[in-house]
Amino acid sequence: MARIVMKFGGTSMAGIERIRNVAARVKREVDAGNQVAVVVSAMAGETDRLVGFCREASSLYDAKEYDVVVSAGEQITSGLLAIALQAAGCKARSWLGWQLPINTSDAHGSARIGEIDTAALDASLAEGVVAVIPGFQGVADGQRVTTLGRGGSDTSAVAMAAAMKADRCDIYTDVDGVYTTDPRIVPRARKLSKVTYEEMLELASVGAKVLQTRSVGLAMKENVRVRVLSSFEDGDTNDGHRGTLIVGEEEIDDMERQLITGIAHDKNEAKITLTQVSDRPGSVAAIFAPLADGGINVDMIVQNVAHSTGSTDVTFTVPAADLARSLDILDKAKEAIGYATIVHDTRVAKVSVVGVGMRSHAGVASTMFTTLGERGINIQAIATSEIKVSVLIEEDYTELAVRVLHTAYGLDAEDAA
Amino acid sequence: MARIVMKFGGTSMAGIERIRNVAARVKREVDAGNQVAVVVSAMAGETDRLVGFCREASSLYDAKEYDVVVSAGEQITSGLLAIALQAAGCKARSWLGWQLPINTSDAHGSARIGEIDTAALDASLAEGVVAVIPGFQGVADGQRVTTLGRGGSDTSAVAMAAAMKADRCDIYTDVDGVYTTDPRIVPRARKLSKVTYEEMLELASVGAKVLQTRSVGLAMKENVRVRVLSSFEDGDTNDGHRGTLIVGEEEIDDMERQLITGIAHDKNEAKITLTQVSDRPGSVAAIFAPLADGGINVDMIVQNVAHSTGSTDVTFTVPAADLARSLDILDKAKEAIGYATIVHDTRVAKVSVVGVGMRSHAGVASTMFTTLGERGINIQAIATSEIKVSVLIEEDYTELAVRVLHTAYGLDAEDAA
Repeated sequence: MARIVMKFGGTSMAGIERIRNVAARVKREVDAGNQVAVVVSAMAGETDRLVGFCREASSLYDAKEYDVVVSAGEQITSGLLAIALQAAGCKARSWLGWQLPINTSDAHGSARIGEIDTAALDASLAEGVVAVIPGFQGVADGQRVTTLGRGGSDTSAVAMAAAMKADRCDIYTDVDGVYTTDPRIVPRARKLSKVTYEEMLELASVGAKVLQTRSVGLAMKENVRVRVLSSFEDGDTNDGHRGTLIVGEEEIDDMERQLITGIAHDKNEAKITLTQVSDRPGSVAAIFAPLADGGINVDMIVQNVAHSTGSTDVTFTVPAADLARSLDILDKAKEAIGYATIVHDTRVAKVSVVGVGMRSHAGVASTMFTTLGERGINIQAIATSEIKVSVLIEEDYTELAVRVLHTAYGLDAEDAA
Repeated sequence: MARIVMKFGGTSMAGIERIRNVAARVKREVDAGNQVAVVVSAMAGETDRLVGFCREASSLYDAKEYDVVVSAGEQITSGLLAIALQAAGCKARSWLGWQLPINTSDAHGSARIGEIDTAALDASLAEGVVAVIPGFQGVADGQRVTTLGRGGSDTSAVAMAAAMKADRCDIYTDVDGVYTTDPRIVPRARKLSKVTYEEMLELASVGAKVLQTRSVGLAMKENVRVRVLSSFEDGDTNDGHRGTLIVGEEEIDDMERQLITGIAHDKNEAKITLTQVSDRPGSVAAIFAPLADGGINVDMIVQNVAHSTGSTDVTFTVPAADLARSLDILDKAKEAIGYATIVHDTRVAKVSVVGVGMRSHAGVASTMFTTLGERGINIQAIATSEIKVSVLIEEDYTELAVRVLHTAYGLDAEDAA
């Protein structure tokens, strides 16, 4: 007997026919003797509908009431899945966020999960009752409904798995796993059977949107074995080859270990350059402190060699969605910073190679620069971490860059998809 | 300063534009210095949608989970109205059933309201915060979500008014009050400015579907002043002439008192006749006991004079929706009852004249029979209560009967609508 958490996204819950399929899938795990908790998203499109209502009611809506409204989507699907499970012959009940309870911070609209009380749940699971838990929601101080922010159901599932000490957390989604890169760009991309938490974080945060980043961070912290797999694919869910397992580095043996795990890209970046910034102590802090105060995540930063005039150009990237606000903040801080002009460009993309293997191998970055240079792709900025090298390039070259790097690092599958 | 409960139905909550209109109406009461609690229904059509999901998931759905699903409709509108009120400049918050809490029995799907804790609510109202309360829902033992049955939001509003000791409970709906009869049948029907609880119960239960019957019974028991008025009509809500006030008999003075308050009709009845029932003690009990056990409400009962053979015919009515089940029950009990044949007819209608004034006036029934007889309308059964006389007639004559009775009792308005 194992204890497992199964999580189903909005596409899997879109309509009763699909909910019945989910029930059948859950029943297989129950029939195999497992204790099962299921975390569900709202029906596809429902959360957008509810968020739309809130925005229409007021552009400055109260986050407490927003949470009351949008949490209803998962409440509905949790009740419906419990009904469908009973119809399939499984004992089942729903547990709303306030009922378990799933305690969270009171940051309405983007709350963080705190302690989850599993006493009542444990007793119910021990009686063979499947627990159906609406994702995305919790309760603050036992009083008001909270939500975790968009995509929060993945985080709910991982948090439940940690609280229940589950043997694994299976995330059913509309893709069949994590790939070496976006298969729409590289048809020869391969599905990874295992990936480390750290690699998944880098792949997710740079564009491979399979799992919510927060959920991966939480899985790493709590050491929850997460598997991503398709809800539209049949077969034995206990087959280790299905989907992609996300685990700690120690669970990947040397045979399996690759130098590079994947290539990610992100077109949602904007480049900002401040020219002739005075080259004196504190001038760089004067740029980034007000941006940080404004909640803007600055990513890649390049400071050019100082001009002979004693000034320098500073280039960095921000999320494209935050560009207008960033320019406004920098304009207001012009005097404090001391610069000549602001130049900005949204026609850029960030391409990254990711892999824990690069820690012990030199030459990864150099291969990247050489490969791109041979194709005449100009590198505008570079950023590195222990397990990642990212470059900023002109947006039009994104797909070309991803393809040539995928081949250069030996990631192409032998038989094209 | 007064304390008032305002209740808005699904048509008034259908979409953000209408919810904004509701907010404006609530604001007027707040600006007039009142403490206000608002009870809301789900958006028109939403409860049907959610009930449809449950039925599609399983014809034998678990009522506990049904309640989780269908209560979401009012949860959504309560949050949205709170947002719209804030946007209109009113302090407001939603209170879900489990938050107040509104304690109910654990009869899921048709729970009865018990005690409502108003301590937190009172404090919030005293701070000038409008309370927005989803109708139709409550919580059993502080644990599971319950609902009150269709139309339960009227009952929620009256129960809130009783618990809050509100000065009045205004039910906003899509009609502008209670009429002497259905204006679609009698264009000269008049709107009643006042009606007693007892009359409203008789009018509602025989077809004037303005307010849920349970809510009227509760208002009578708790002595809550209820007013029914249109949410689509503008004007001063404190104008005593708007809508219809539903109050105790003692609040209607002699000048206002009418002999007959209204004429109701109901086409959803079915007539059943058992022939040659043996005329011995216990035979009638043998008919009605199994029907009562089956939860079937038997209405009008006529037992004919015994035949010389020592047997009698027994005629009675049941809701048309329960006819098939009734026939089945009676067929199974045939031996125990002892009858020759069952005859049934759904092409019947019940027409009733209602008024507390008839208590002190003879001749009401006789006027009814004479009036119908003059038009050649045959009476198949008669039932009377202290404030009502009902007759069963052939369905095709329903509208004619209502019109001639409306005129006979002097109810026609002087200027036709």
